[in-house]
Amino acid sequence: MSWLAGYGKDAGEENDNLGVDWVLQYEFGDIDQAQAIAEYRTLIHDLTEAGLRVQARHGHGASLLVCIRVPRDQLGHMIHKSRLKDWLCGITHTLPVGDEHTVAAADTPAEELRSVYHTITWQKELGGAGVTPKFGKWKHVTASFPLHDQDACGDLLRKWSKATVLTAEDLDIIRALFGEKVAFYYAFIQCYSLFLIVPAVLGVIGWMYLGPYSIVYGTVLCLWCIVFVEYWKIREADLSLRWGVKGVARLKVNRVQYQWEKEIRDPITGQLEQVFPAWKQLLRQLLLIPFASVATLALGTLIVVTFASEVFISEVYDGPLKGYLEFVPTVLFSLSLPVITPFLTNMATWLTDYENYRTQDLYDLAQTQKTFVMHFITAFLPTILTAYVYVPFGTLIVPRLDLLRRTGLETKSISPYTDFQVDTTRFQQEVIYLSMTAQVLNFGQEVVLPYVKQTLWQKWRSYSDRKAEMGRKRRSSISASLSNFLLIDLPNEASFLARVRAEADADEYNVEEDILEMCVQFGYLALFGVAWSLVPLGFLLNNWLELRGDFFKLTLECQRPPPIRSDSIGPSLLGLEFLAWLGTLSTAAIVHLYRGPISEVRLSYLLLTVFIAEQAYLATRFTVATALRKIFSDTISREEARRYAVRKGVLAARTAAAEGGVSSSPELLTTKPRHRVRFNEKVNVYCSTTDIEPSPDGTPSPTGELSHDEVLCGSDREAQFWNGPKHTHISTTTDMTDAGIKLIRALNTHKTAGHAPKMSKTA
Amino acid sequence: MSWLAGYGKDAGEENDNLGVDWVLQYEFGDIDQAQAIAEYRTLIHDLTEAGLRVQARHGHGASLLVCIRVPRDQLGHMIHKSRLKDWLCGITHTLPVGDEHTVAAADTPAEELRSVYHTITWQKELGGAGVTPKFGKWKHVTASFPLHDQDACGDLLRKWSKATVLTAEDLDIIRALFGEKVAFYYAFIQCYSLFLIVPAVLGVIGWMYLGPYSIVYGTVLCLWCIVFVEYWKIREADLSLRWGVKGVARLKVNRVQYQWEKEIRDPITGQLEQVFPAWKQLLRQLLLIPFASVATLALGTLIVVTFASEVFISEVYDGPLKGYLEFVPTVLFSLSLPVITPFLTNMATWLTDYENYRTQDLYDLAQTQKTFVMHFITAFLPTILTAYVYVPFGTLIVPRLDLLRRTGLETKSISPYTDFQVDTTRFQQEVIYLSMTAQVLNFGQEVVLPYVKQTLWQKWRSYSDRKAEMGRKRRSSISASLSNFLLIDLPNEASFLARVRAEADADEYNVEEDILEMCVQFGYLALFGVAWSLVPLGFLLNNWLELRGDFFKLTLECQRPPPIRSDSIGPSLLGLEFLAWLGTLSTAAIVHLYRGPISEVRLSYLLLTVFIAEQAYLATRFTVATALRKIFSDTISREEARRYAVRKGVLAARTAAAEGGVSSSPELLTTKPRHRVRFNEKVNVYCSTTDIEPSPDGTPSPTGELSHDEVLCGSDREAQFWNGPKHTHISTTTDMTDAGIKLIRALNTHKTAGHAPKMSKTA
Repeated sequence: MSWLAGYGKDAGEENDNLGVDWVLQYEFGDIDQAQAIAEYRTLIHDLTEAGLRVQARHGHGASLLVCIRVPRDQLGHMIHKSRLKDWLCGITHTLPVGDEHTVAAADTPAEELRSVYHTITWQKELGGAGVTPKFGKWKHVTASFPLHDQDACGDLLRKWSKATVLTAEDLDIIRALFGEKVAFYYAFIQCYSLFLIVPAVLGVIGWMYLGPYSIVYGTVLCLWCIVFVEYWKIREADLSLRWGVKGVARLKVNRVQYQWEKEIRDPITGQLEQVFPAWKQLLRQLLLIPFASVATLALGTLIVVTFASEVFISEVYDGPLKGYLEFVPTVLFSLSLPVITPFLTNMATWLTDYENYRTQDLYDLAQTQKTFVMHFITAFLPTILTAYVYVPFGTLIVPRLDLLRRTGLETKSISPYTDFQVDTTRFQQEVIYLSMTAQVLNFGQEVVLPYVKQTLWQKWRSYSDRKAEMGRKRRSSISASLSNFLLIDLPNEASFLARVRAEADADEYNVEEDILEMCVQFGYLALFGVAWSLVPLGFLLNNWLELRGDFFKLTLECQRPPPIRSDSIGPSLLGLEFLAWLGTLSTAAIVHLYRGPISEVRLSYLLLTVFIAEQAYLATRFTVATALRKIFSDTISREEARRYAVRKGVLAARTAAAEGGVSSSPELLTTKPRHRVRFNEKVNVYCSTTDIEPSPDGTPSPTGELSHDEVLCGSDREAQFWNGPKHTHISTTTDMTDAGIKLIRALNTHKTAGHAPKMSKTA
Repeated sequence: MSWLAGYGKDAGEENDNLGVDWVLQYEFGDIDQAQAIAEYRTLIHDLTEAGLRVQARHGHGASLLVCIRVPRDQLGHMIHKSRLKDWLCGITHTLPVGDEHTVAAADTPAEELRSVYHTITWQKELGGAGVTPKFGKWKHVTASFPLHDQDACGDLLRKWSKATVLTAEDLDIIRALFGEKVAFYYAFIQCYSLFLIVPAVLGVIGWMYLGPYSIVYGTVLCLWCIVFVEYWKIREADLSLRWGVKGVARLKVNRVQYQWEKEIRDPITGQLEQVFPAWKQLLRQLLLIPFASVATLALGTLIVVTFASEVFISEVYDGPLKGYLEFVPTVLFSLSLPVITPFLTNMATWLTDYENYRTQDLYDLAQTQKTFVMHFITAFLPTILTAYVYVPFGTLIVPRLDLLRRTGLETKSISPYTDFQVDTTRFQQEVIYLSMTAQVLNFGQEVVLPYVKQTLWQKWRSYSDRKAEMGRKRRSSISASLSNFLLIDLPNEASFLARVRAEADADEYNVEEDILEMCVQFGYLALFGVAWSLVPLGFLLNNWLELRGDFFKLTLECQRPPPIRSDSIGPSLLGLEFLAWLGTLSTAAIVHLYRGPISEVRLSYLLLTVFIAEQAYLATRFTVATALRKIFSDTISREEARRYAVRKGVLAARTAAAEGGVSSSPELLTTKPRHRVRFNEKVNVYCSTTDIEPSPDGTPSPTGELSHDEVLCGSDREAQFWNGPKHTHISTTTDMTDAGIKLIRALNTHKTAGHAPKMSKTA
């Protein structure tokens, strides 16, 4: 729980990250000592070769924590180069000031961390250290993450607990802390929740005056879905301009796993490009069809069987233990889902790997598409079965389930088939369950349960750590004394290292999952919302909590994600469009089916209703998209205006140069300085790099040789940390390698002594 | 016919445009002489004020032809400014070389003419003469056009008459002659025709082996439609990049008729913008719905009545004169259509005016949308009625048409109602008619008929001109001798002026009409093509002729259109998408209806077929669009590559400057010179302006004071023309005004004398 202790207002210095930019966790529990030392040596070599400062400390169990710091001038230069690249690829229109030695100050912590991330993960050709966790020769590097900014996160969570809605400034802060990809999720949930107010209010009115399955409410709901999706597209474009990430996908580097067929020099840009033929990828993508079929079959069968046996037990079966047996199918379903899902996920991952995408973005996109298919089936199929199979055809199907009677095993006489009555309210009950109970349960499962698990895990860990220490003390001999000494944290580092260890143990945050969850919620509303008009109200209340819970999860239960850039919520947008379309058809069908007695519904009229609804959907979507694009055209044309302004400036500079006889300096191409995001007027943890001048010879300071004043920028504790533990008297990089090796040996001694259990957590 | 004479290979000097850039026709037939003189004086004043050289000659009837020439250095400067503007608005990425006095050479005649067009039509604030034909104070300026380049057009037509397909080079030449908007039409018809080969070949096979209403052929046809539309979108984007017009709509100037509500200074660019609220325009656009309803009602009623009476006469009526009466409805329809259509067109124009668009592009777009609605109804409704009303419900409806019997007026006994058999082949017959006869008739109406009319009109005109001359000679007195003398062309100008007069009389070319015609053809294929598999073959053959006929019409029957830029075929693209969608539904329905006996078709199954077809359409379109975008992604990313290359160049320049200590000159921002389009290695009519230096003081040469060498660039005839007719000894602009006034007086004398009939042609 030490990593939570720092969350109090009075934490102050405790939350200091001691100038650590990034942490790698190296686990060597399942390899022998010699290999571990060799790998560790390569790791430190590669990192220092890339100009990084490193400090190693022991982690939980047989693992090392490698703390990494990028020298400030190198980092500033990386940031400048990254901005230049943005400009070259047309992401920004303003050419950054400076020459090839310029050191730039980051606008946001996220921008800084992104450059750190690139320095660590990019291949050596691109100027990075090439450390790709869990892949290739780095498969024992099990975690790679920056440290959380506890103060900023705490402030934000406290602020939100009092506020009703997120402001644009809040979104900017999230973007500054976690990058655009995460910020887009919060922008989405905020926009979606605000939009939910409309159907929530109408839903309450409808609940009081109209009743369920109202045509008016259904129409409004469908219209709302369409408007929301179309509005979000514009909002997304707007935000991507505000954050300067529009079209950012095109400058992403190749994935390490990408296999190209040939290298082509682009005739226009002269760049060497690694090409994998599009048609080949397209053919491979066709495998999505068998995958979707298998997933549908596997999950579908499971759901249908569960559903059928549930219906059978509750409606037909009348034997002993009925009360308990009713829960059996659901329990079996819940047990078998975790068996099937990982199998399908593995299949999806294999497929996505095979599809061979160039960038991580494209890879994630393809993977999310497949996850979406699976989510779609598990989330919506049960309710679809209830709405369209069980209720309308129940009288035909259910009696056939009565296998007991057919096989002559019935225990007592039940009413004849013709008397069987389908419970028509079952569908509505399911919708009510989905919008209230399921949301709460889901929140518990997503936020509360991991928190409890984490707490218990920490408790057990500290208990076993204490036990190991006792063992060490008991077995203390001269040969082991040094290594034991090594494994005790220095008092001024202890709380910091405890936090780092906890964060290294935490889960990786996957923003796509959160986005998908919201999409599924939107899907419930679009598909089944018409059955109970309080659904949007339930969702609205849930989302207030959800947003805060997700942020809690992000900051306290997960590793800080690398600040990836993105200009959209990704493939989920397509999912939203699909759900809005399917929702229109579904709403029309439900209203048609459930308004009157189901027995009177004629298939041809139902079909006609759905057909008309689809045409109405197509026409409405076209109209809404056109109208919204027109109304918000100034938002979209802002980008053009910006480019125009920059070009106008260039022209003016040229004219001025020509008239004044002064040569136009390229600096004139740049405009006003950027806005720097700070939190509550606090200066960032690091000293501002604005004042750092490039060293006199113009090159970044050589690796490891940290200029004196840089160390002084941070606190004394920070300086102590980076100068290495005093008792070992190590301060240079070579010494650091040795220190780490000593740690490995020390940890291995305990491992072989069998006292420290191998700690691998399966969350 | 004189304007056709120059089309022979031996024409040579006859085709010389004598350096005339543009021609305005001023008609004063219906106003009194004083007003005519005042207006003419203003016209010449405005033109010369904008720096243009003018020469006036008499036109046909009471009209003057004002020949305009832009001094070469002024034109070159206009071209340079236009390119700068392109760069500012992000249409091109390369900053043009030069300063504020630069004189650029045009890449194509179209670029040159566009600048001429801007000089004449742009408002005075923008540096033009502000002459907007047929509007406001210029409502007596009835024509405004550049002269055709007879040689180039003749060469092209001759080349095409031998070639099967147009090459990319041909499209470039059309673009160079007529601008991008026209070139896009030819690119479209070429792409469409090439695509037609696939269904044409399959159609022949289908015709031999499958018969009509084949499911296989229908599926292929629908798929083909979707692929074509999606491919064309990519092709269009590709061409717009090739021609450097992508996003060109945003730099278009305001229409003169545009009424803004407030002026806003853009916060980013600092430009003053005239704003009309988008929501207001949107509300006004909603009037499209009543318009579409009225149009549907008016045209629909007309078509239904015609259809019903035709059916009545052919199927039910059995009285006297049946053979003749059968044609009556069609004749009545053909007669009443020209009454209703102009009424609807006027309504559409009024609506579009009211919608108050900022640019001519947007205005044309809105107008075309409305025309599309009307075209859609008149073109498709009759066949839709046959396919979906007459044949399926004929047995129910037709007997009720038998009003004669009901009112007891029948002349002789006809078979009872139950015996009535609908002619199920009628639908197929109509499709065959549409794809063969109608195409030929349409071609005749569009190309041949106007040509014949024009020829006859010219014949009559020269006859009446001769008569008028005879009259002049008979009445020759001292007072009238000067004016008579004025009205006789100089021998070396006679043939040229005859051509100018003929072109002034010709129709304006409307490229939208040609595009719409192709869309309607595509619509026939998509909607009804499945009924007869030879339809695509018919269309393919027709289009070979159509393309050449349209070019013939453009170059010989119409005025040369101003070379407008555009980056798409415009709203017709939306029409194509709509037709592909409707075509899928229609094909599915037709196949379902007509494959077996119609009496056995059940509505619910038909609905199911159409419903499934729609889902298949949506899925296919999504897949095809995704796949094509992937396959042609390099086409689309070429734009990015180009920008990247330019920016890379800028950066290299900056680095070089920083390293070498040399100031980076803005000239480094520019890259390789552009390719200049010439025809068959002939040099353009005008001397190349590349060598023209700006005058020493840096300003363009003052108006009217033409430097000696410019006149010498052209032929002697050209010099003579621009120095004015020798006998009047006029050479300065003021004299030109007087000369024109004299011409007005002379022409008016004849008008009042009643010998020269007022010649207004209603084409």
